[in-house]
Amino acid sequence: MTKTKNMLIAQSGGPSSAINSSVAGAISKAMESDKIDQIYGAVNGSEGVLNRKIINITDQLKSQEDIDLLIGTPAQALGTSRYKIPKGDDGDKVFAQILEILHDYDIGYFFFNGGNDSMDTVSRLAQYLDERDEDIIAVGIPKTIDNDLVGTDHTPGFGCAARYVATSISELYMDTIVYDRPYVVICEIMGRNAGWLTAASALARNVGLPAPHLIYLPEVPFDKDAFITNVKDKISSGGDPQVIVAVSEGLKLEDGSYIADTGGALDSFGHPTLSGVAQVLESLVTDKLGSDIKTRAIQFSTLQRSAAHIASGTDLEEAFQCGFRAVEAALEGTTSIMVTMERTSNSPYAIKYDVTPLSEVANKEKKVPLEWITKDGTDVSNEMIEYLKPLITGEVSPCTEQGLPVYFRFDRNLIVSP
Amino acid sequence: MTKTKNMLIAQSGGPSSAINSSVAGAISKAMESDKIDQIYGAVNGSEGVLNRKIINITDQLKSQEDIDLLIGTPAQALGTSRYKIPKGDDGDKVFAQILEILHDYDIGYFFFNGGNDSMDTVSRLAQYLDERDEDIIAVGIPKTIDNDLVGTDHTPGFGCAARYVATSISELYMDTIVYDRPYVVICEIMGRNAGWLTAASALARNVGLPAPHLIYLPEVPFDKDAFITNVKDKISSGGDPQVIVAVSEGLKLEDGSYIADTGGALDSFGHPTLSGVAQVLESLVTDKLGSDIKTRAIQFSTLQRSAAHIASGTDLEEAFQCGFRAVEAALEGTTSIMVTMERTSNSPYAIKYDVTPLSEVANKEKKVPLEWITKDGTDVSNEMIEYLKPLITGEVSPCTEQGLPVYFRFDRNLIVSP
Repeated sequence: MTKTKNMLIAQSGGPSSAINSSVAGAISKAMESDKIDQIYGAVNGSEGVLNRKIINITDQLKSQEDIDLLIGTPAQALGTSRYKIPKGDDGDKVFAQILEILHDYDIGYFFFNGGNDSMDTVSRLAQYLDERDEDIIAVGIPKTIDNDLVGTDHTPGFGCAARYVATSISELYMDTIVYDRPYVVICEIMGRNAGWLTAASALARNVGLPAPHLIYLPEVPFDKDAFITNVKDKISSGGDPQVIVAVSEGLKLEDGSYIADTGGALDSFGHPTLSGVAQVLESLVTDKLGSDIKTRAIQFSTLQRSAAHIASGTDLEEAFQCGFRAVEAALEGTTSIMVTMERTSNSPYAIKYDVTPLSEVANKEKKVPLEWITKDGTDVSNEMIEYLKPLITGEVSPCTEQGLPVYFRFDRNLIVSP
Repeated sequence: MTKTKNMLIAQSGGPSSAINSSVAGAISKAMESDKIDQIYGAVNGSEGVLNRKIINITDQLKSQEDIDLLIGTPAQALGTSRYKIPKGDDGDKVFAQILEILHDYDIGYFFFNGGNDSMDTVSRLAQYLDERDEDIIAVGIPKTIDNDLVGTDHTPGFGCAARYVATSISELYMDTIVYDRPYVVICEIMGRNAGWLTAASALARNVGLPAPHLIYLPEVPFDKDAFITNVKDKISSGGDPQVIVAVSEGLKLEDGSYIADTGGALDSFGHPTLSGVAQVLESLVTDKLGSDIKTRAIQFSTLQRSAAHIASGTDLEEAFQCGFRAVEAALEGTTSIMVTMERTSNSPYAIKYDVTPLSEVANKEKKVPLEWITKDGTDVSNEMIEYLKPLITGEVSPCTEQGLPVYFRFDRNLIVSP
């Protein structure tokens, strides 16, 4: 008889519309396996593990209908955390605590669903377990709207956010051209160091719209004078005098400083906090081109990462598969890996799932290759558009009642003892 | 034989997701009538009429498929204008010019699709025509996301914006509760003097969410101290420490000044321009409760008025019917009226279309009745929720290609001579 063990899954990093689809995939695979007994969830990431905030997913997810709802529910259903396990001896103390808790709950399989900071956490945990010959498997399930994980063609969560961004740009273009006058709309899109999501704004052109007219990614140093010249040129190009500009929140000047630097404040991962690059640029346009040119700054804000009502079907399916295959790999005894996607064909679009060692992924950042950005730094290349195109496709019919989305929610307060 | 005349339609005011559905309705009725020959559209509202920027809709709309696309296309397909025809003799000169153009194009039926400023314009035009015994009918088709037109139960365009607002509040709630810490999210919603759209945020509760936790409408003077007390109470209520606040852009203090006053600047209709009430309140929360309380300001901005991808089917259908019945009334010889909707039953929801004299509508503003706002000014009543509920229902399947919305676009440069 196979020795059964329990499984624990946690989510980390920032929200996305597809992250719960990965949990649903992991659960679906775990439920069909006779090697896994109870499926536990840690509430609020690694902090939840440490604080024994553990719920019983097997008990709470009662039906296929619940799983279907979970797939379409945005933002970590298990909650998240920005807690970073310290380095060195202090970190080892934390990992020792975690190990004790894993033992208490008889966990044989641990899954961590998040971005590059999260992959660092699970990588270090896997190493800690390995060094102590512990029979506990630790696997990473990728997730980030930033699409900046290495070792995978793209990341679950990115497609949904990209679809929201491109759709919003389309709608804003329609909104902007109703007036017969110059109008500059600056849209601020998430992405601190990697411009993938901002690049996705270019997809709006695939349905024949000229927007966005200018795209600025953080991979290229931002030149304020060139920006003003570019905006002026677009206004007087002879076409519509309206200009939609897509900018990444993480735009930096030549000297490396963020345009929207809030003055040195850092978040709990030590990244500088940013705010309002669109507003900074709005003021710049008004200052340089005069207030006759109507200008509007729009932050897509957190709406862009949780807009499950306009999810990409492709993204939700891939996120599910990443969770499913993470459990599959774990059941085969593979540890210290992250599930990856390799694009075997672009037309027709085809993905092959694989795994990569966590050490290859942790703390690395995949930026937009410079050859996918036009020379003048105001647009992306056709290669980028071809790369992005399939990721936002696939219609889904979100579950609605009275015109509103319906979600699955775990009772995060129903903490269970081992 | 019936004497045929041409028809001219123009759109005005701010964009909405349903405004083109009204044009589609008007065109559909006009196409089936033998009293109307050519259907013309004025590009950019009354300015377009004055500048003879007139296109031939009969030529440009080629199929039912085009009409279907037009229904789902956000923001005035004919463009808009904020030009206000002056009062007195100067106004008469403008109306004389318009009359000459209407004669040139042999217009027998003129339709103006817009909000209360637009209804004033068409009301004055109708009066001018009437005083001169002109055989030209002038009819208003209501439109505004603000829902502030009198004489009608609600306005086309409101339901779509309301659905976007309630859905976004739902998604932001899910996004906000992933962290286990106090978090105040302040959402700024359009509505300068009337709080209808901000009130629609309350619909998020109909699917079991507690958000929004606080709702502030412009109908009630805003008290900063009470606001801070309310936020503090919600954070420490014993439930989730996250607080979603829905605020109208037009919040005013007891002395009548706007919280987000930009310092006296007026738009072309003489209304004060506003910007950033959410940011003002974000700073206030940080100032009073300390920066330990994470706070985020989110402006729904122009996204809320053009988000056709999440249109309300009920709204699109009603907008269509308002256009259709405007032409119907005109063909029956009725002039100087606006089409209205009367709610004959709320459950099941039923609407009766009617007309009202433009003079009863123009320059009036329907605010939220105070009895539909709770005594402490932080929420709306059940009557309000029952009133709002049916307006956001009705699923539509927007036409998409490659995951992106597809729109109908008039060629606004294809100007035609009489």
